[in-house]
Amino acid sequence: MVTESLIPIRYAETDKMGVVYHANYLIWFEIARTDFLKEIGIPYELLEKEGLMSPVIQAELNYGRPLHYGEVAVVTTRLVKLSSVRSTFAYEVWCEDQDRAAEKPCCTGHTSHCLVREGSFKPVSTKREAPKLYEAYQKALEPLDV
Amino acid sequence: MVTESLIPIRYAETDKMGVVYHANYLIWFEIARTDFLKEIGIPYELLEKEGLMSPVIQAELNYGRPLHYGEVAVVTTRLVKLSSVRSTFAYEVWCEDQDRAAEKPCCTGHTSHCLVREGSFKPVSTKREAPKLYEAYQKALEPLDV
Amino acid sequence: MVTESLIPIRYAETDKMGVVYHANYLIWFEIARTDFLKEIGIPYELLEKEGLMSPVIQAELNYGRPLHYGEVAVVTTRLVKLSSVRSTFAYEVWCEDQDRAAEKPCCTGHTSHCLVREGSFKPVSTKREAPKLYEAYQKALEPLDV
Amino acid sequence: MVTESLIPIRYAETDKMGVVYHANYLIWFEIARTDFLKEIGIPYELLEKEGLMSPVIQAELNYGRPLHYGEVAVVTTRLVKLSSVRSTFAYEVWCEDQDRAAEKPCCTGHTSHCLVREGSFKPVSTKREAPKLYEAYQKALEPLDV
Repeated sequence: MVTESLIPIRYAETDKMGVVYHANYLIWFEIARTDFLKEIGIPYELLEKEGLMSPVIQAELNYGRPLHYGEVAVVTTRLVKLSSVRSTFAYEVWCEDQDRAAEKPCCTGHTSHCLVREGSFKPVSTKREAPKLYEAYQKALEPLDV
Repeated sequence: MVTESLIPIRYAETDKMGVVYHANYLIWFEIARTDFLKEIGIPYELLEKEGLMSPVIQAELNYGRPLHYGEVAVVTTRLVKLSSVRSTFAYEVWCEDQDRAAEKPCCTGHTSHCLVREGSFKPVSTKREAPKLYEAYQKALEPLDV
Repeated sequence: MVTESLIPIRYAETDKMGVVYHANYLIWFEIARTDFLKEIGIPYELLEKEGLMSPVIQAELNYGRPLHYGEVAVVTTRLVKLSSVRSTFAYEVWCEDQDRAAEKPCCTGHTSHCLVREGSFKPVSTKREAPKLYEAYQKALEPLDV
Repeated sequence: MVTESLIPIRYAETDKMGVVYHANYLIWFEIARTDFLKEIGIPYELLEKEGLMSPVIQAELNYGRPLHYGEVAVVTTRLVKLSSVRSTFAYEVWCEDQDRAAEKPCCTGHTSHCLVREGSFKPVSTKREAPKLYEAYQKALEPLDV
């Protein structure tokens, strides 16, 4: 499954280069991941209510064409790797106006996550501690080398 | 008492106008308040360890000359009002290079705070629940009409 | 005219209190103002293309009930004061789930703006330098004491 | 050459997990890079005054132990790869209190940069367009596989 998130670009997200500041793409990845989780039926708030959190343990970003205030970013999200201790999402960021067949994305990247208990920050097995999430992940998984 | 905090301006704090984005001054006020609390002997982390938090309930900002990446901001902080349920801090933001005798600050503002219990977010009396903080506040108080 | 902007709350917008960090409301005000300008037919990007910018010169915020990740903020915007050198917007921030007839907004505030030339940052008369914007402002104006 | 930057952790940098929000490490890398450039005698503001910018084209982050409000982050920076069109910096983020001989960094990462002309965003040769920077980079270079 691939989800799409529309993100109208905020003035606050630009920097003095006149384009979106590079760290904001990590925030957009998270918004996109939030949408993905909602789509597969396990909103992130729900996980947190059960005392679980899914921190980022690794991230990579490749930047192409910059994005500007007044444009709308489209972030596509897919789950590309899954084990009981680690899940990896891949993202593409497009400008809404772009011709996706002919052009390249403005940014690509991925983030890897573990699952931890709130408080202790101790990693747990997704399969064992959050079986419904693991099952939903398995259904949504679309492997891709990253 | 008036404390001073030096804040080298971050690239991330600019926007496409080429100057510091206006919301960041609230973050600087907080950094300055953190320094003020440390100075009067009650670091904010300590309050939080006792299950207390001091959220902002009111804020005002007046912007003058903009600030730029590469400059260093100097924020002065004073406690200008105090009651058992509310404390008000006033701030001035200067550019390190400015002649403070001849010029005006780049930004002035104030923030008002209550004290709440973590979890419930229920306001409590500073005098009763955090007597050491209240006493330190009383000593540091320098009234000023805002 | 009063416009409404829906803002799904971002994880990145929370702080260790577990609620939305107070400086983010200024960013939301700006998103709401962007929507307001689009609604009255003068998108902010258009102004910037003509070499004009509308920086914040004054802001005030009053915080009530905190907002949380997973909630959707609704920001209402109205233009409440207008002169050729200054425009003032008033905002209310609600949680989408709230009963607006019976409850109070989570935050209220206002921001005042001048109009400046890019580069010089020199204030200009909106009436003279951006007559279409001034006219649109006049039509949309709904005075309110702030 | 390896430079070190001290970054007192801001309340605004935390999220509802109670720790530093992961995107902020990219901002810290930039602060550290700014210090590095100052150290080698080519402050970034200077580059910008000559109409040059050095945007991030690739970034990677590996997160370990989380960092907290009240702690001070120490970021070490070294230039690990250099060509006329690309420079790569490697970073380690430590907590000031850590025993660096015995423990692991809280975060490691790297960022790669090109050099572009302001306005056009067109990549240029650092060697040709900014020879002083290139020379300073060559002197500071400490190769490291990343």
